[in-house]
Amino acid sequence: MEYFERIKINRILLKDEIPVDSEIILLGWARTVRVSKNVAFIEINDGSCSGNLQAVISNPDQFPSLKNILTGAAIRIKGKLIASPAKGQKYELAVTELDLLGPADETYPLQKKRHSFEFLRDIAHLRMRTNTFGAVNRIRSKIAYAVHKFFQERGFYYLHTPMITTSDAEGAGEVFRVTTFDLKNIPAKEGKIDYNEDFFGVEAFLTVSGQLEAEIGALALGDVYTFGPTFRSENSNTSRHASEFWMIEPEMAFCDLAGNARIATEFIKYLFKYALDECADEMDFFNKWIDKTAIETLEFVIKSEFEHITYTEAIKILEASKEPFEFPVAWGSDIQTEHERYLAEKKFNKPVIITDYPKKIKAFYMRVNDDGKTVGAMDLLVPKIGEIIGGSQREERFDVLKAHMEEKGMDISLYDWYFDLRKYGSAPHSGFGLGFDRLLMYITGMSNIRDTSPFPRVPRWAKF
Amino acid sequence: MEYFERIKINRILLKDEIPVDSEIILLGWARTVRVSKNVAFIEINDGSCSGNLQAVISNPDQFPSLKNILTGAAIRIKGKLIASPAKGQKYELAVTELDLLGPADETYPLQKKRHSFEFLRDIAHLRMRTNTFGAVNRIRSKIAYAVHKFFQERGFYYLHTPMITTSDAEGAGEVFRVTTFDLKNIPAKEGKIDYNEDFFGVEAFLTVSGQLEAEIGALALGDVYTFGPTFRSENSNTSRHASEFWMIEPEMAFCDLAGNARIATEFIKYLFKYALDECADEMDFFNKWIDKTAIETLEFVIKSEFEHITYTEAIKILEASKEPFEFPVAWGSDIQTEHERYLAEKKFNKPVIITDYPKKIKAFYMRVNDDGKTVGAMDLLVPKIGEIIGGSQREERFDVLKAHMEEKGMDISLYDWYFDLRKYGSAPHSGFGLGFDRLLMYITGMSNIRDTSPFPRVPRWAKF
Repeated sequence: MEYFERIKINRILLKDEIPVDSEIILLGWARTVRVSKNVAFIEINDGSCSGNLQAVISNPDQFPSLKNILTGAAIRIKGKLIASPAKGQKYELAVTELDLLGPADETYPLQKKRHSFEFLRDIAHLRMRTNTFGAVNRIRSKIAYAVHKFFQERGFYYLHTPMITTSDAEGAGEVFRVTTFDLKNIPAKEGKIDYNEDFFGVEAFLTVSGQLEAEIGALALGDVYTFGPTFRSENSNTSRHASEFWMIEPEMAFCDLAGNARIATEFIKYLFKYALDECADEMDFFNKWIDKTAIETLEFVIKSEFEHITYTEAIKILEASKEPFEFPVAWGSDIQTEHERYLAEKKFNKPVIITDYPKKIKAFYMRVNDDGKTVGAMDLLVPKIGEIIGGSQREERFDVLKAHMEEKGMDISLYDWYFDLRKYGSAPHSGFGLGFDRLLMYITGMSNIRDTSPFPRVPRWAKF
Repeated sequence: MEYFERIKINRILLKDEIPVDSEIILLGWARTVRVSKNVAFIEINDGSCSGNLQAVISNPDQFPSLKNILTGAAIRIKGKLIASPAKGQKYELAVTELDLLGPADETYPLQKKRHSFEFLRDIAHLRMRTNTFGAVNRIRSKIAYAVHKFFQERGFYYLHTPMITTSDAEGAGEVFRVTTFDLKNIPAKEGKIDYNEDFFGVEAFLTVSGQLEAEIGALALGDVYTFGPTFRSENSNTSRHASEFWMIEPEMAFCDLAGNARIATEFIKYLFKYALDECADEMDFFNKWIDKTAIETLEFVIKSEFEHITYTEAIKILEASKEPFEFPVAWGSDIQTEHERYLAEKKFNKPVIITDYPKKIKAFYMRVNDDGKTVGAMDLLVPKIGEIIGGSQREERFDVLKAHMEEKGMDISLYDWYFDLRKYGSAPHSGFGLGFDRLLMYITGMSNIRDTSPFPRVPRWAKF
């Protein structure tokens, strides 16, 4: 074990924990190697942060392994940490031992040059070694932790809702089937597929949302949240759609739409502040190389007092705007991204929470308002992308829920247990959903969801 | 929003944060209601902790809603927190306002009596409201958070490995298929199923492990961990098998088997200590009602210095033991649970880490030892159940990996990217896996995995 007792580079460069003159071991990968007769330099990166540490070899002749160390090689270096005389770096390592652990030859795809994101997607098993994807995946981890911190500190319980399900929360039908049938020999009975013979004895699918099960949790534990994978089999090849993505879905008992909006606002500001405070290394990187407004965007949201308007008010504003929208604006139609961006960017120049959408365009579980025409839905819009959070107060009234579902033509016999929640100790409750991979696009400025997810799944792509 | 501005009961009973004489609002569910002419008592539980708070109504006539409040009803109570004169409780609430939010009638399945776990499994949408399943799901949440805390505090990055995959990490074949094919009309080409027509353009399955992808992460970011759902289509109806379960899989670059064992030991002790320190309410409940040795078991593991032996030594001990084992003991056979329990309970009376198993009975990715016969595998056994953690040092040598996979008859052409990790900057690396639902069985003393998972999936069961 001693051989591998290393100091991680983030402790040196970011946390400044290691005093000059310490004898230390570094373990990582060579980013660049420059050898001349009297001196050699190796930039080593160990994945702990964006920065490399420069290792200096003052007597290259003494290190025969040096000639086999090319870009990408895994190496072990022992040496003394010294103040660097070079510009732009505080420390360097004066090397006393150098071992090649795993070579990389000239065919290594990540030679020192810029690579397109398209190219890197094909080699997602190596791209995490680049500056960009190292930073993306580090910040992904830290923001995931911030999600847990936020809810745990507020007394929410983390609930693992099922991946394999027989309920379809959205009623959208864009689901993947899960089966152990031999596809060449599917059992049938009276001319129909006999799902009784399948693994679960019924048709089973991958979940599109944990919300319905989160409602079970909220009406028992009070405040819960989910944070897990969800799936859509939508055949969309856009930069914002993935077939598998992680969703965060808090659900709060005894909480109305105003409370829901308040928690969503606190949550988004908390995450953005966490990104700025705890992920400064990554945010500096994104701000420099990916999106020059990345930091400013988060700061702007944090300091904004969010605007609250109803859908009906939003429609009036859009109608009065005279903007050349592609999609028509009319009460009863969905608000499109272009409309959302107009509201958040031009009209209010801050995040906007729109509430009380028409019942017809929203899901069955949303609480019907007294006007009978709108429901307690809520979308949180931010500049640059529009909707980032969608939520609602849920219908807690048995009869109203039943009538609404029948109106939508749903088979209510499939929702026995969901009705039980309204039959026994029903209570006002609310929640919202935030797509984690899209949230990361917003924070990092990365423009394709295939690049914020480490192993994206999209139509015709499930490699690794 | 003001109407719902409540104090959660755990702040009163567990954290002692609310001073006597405070005017507060409680929101929760009536557990028991006792009404007499001059006084009424309602035990209210809000899901934040095991305990109920007793609400006292000294003038029942003034509260007409009282007669409609039965066990299970959702209620809102306003009142003054007072020191309780009754035995066994520190506080009670002197009620000034009482609202029925959602009634529950006599058909409510959770009337005040003991219910069998079998009965409660059928109503998993209500069982979280019971003392036992409330405690299980609260501790599940807290231990999940402890998992993140442990790794994040040690500089590990959380990696979301894919659910839908085309790799099969275990080579066991017990996988669920994921498809959007219309099962009545599966496209064929030249007599074979044409997977090119399926959603991903290839055969796709649910993952059995995130390990292979975690190796990608470790060889880029250094130390990573996964914590997500995994799936097995094994047709096992035991108390320890589920078809969907959450797994924790850390993977460390520059880490050998000894380092792996050290981290596994630290991890398990950390989680158990967290259960005792941060989940005292739940642990007291389990220790009283579920398993009278629950707390003692965790304390025992925490204070033990784990025994380290090789598989070969373990076989010798088992052969010499003269125990009447059901399964024969012989070098080359798997060590069964009965053997593991003998070692951890009778022979050593402490947790045992067994290393260096025969190559033939272990997975292709494990590092081949110099003897050519064994691999750098590691199992951590604990008293009562046997193996709780399984891990290994991974094979980092290209040629050895290739030979090993060919020996096992695997199609190495499917593992291009996995070989690339050995071709470019390969490094010693190790990791292990811990099934989260089974870990919770161990911590809580609950004897069936269907009861530590909120929505268990097992053969012929995928409800909710």
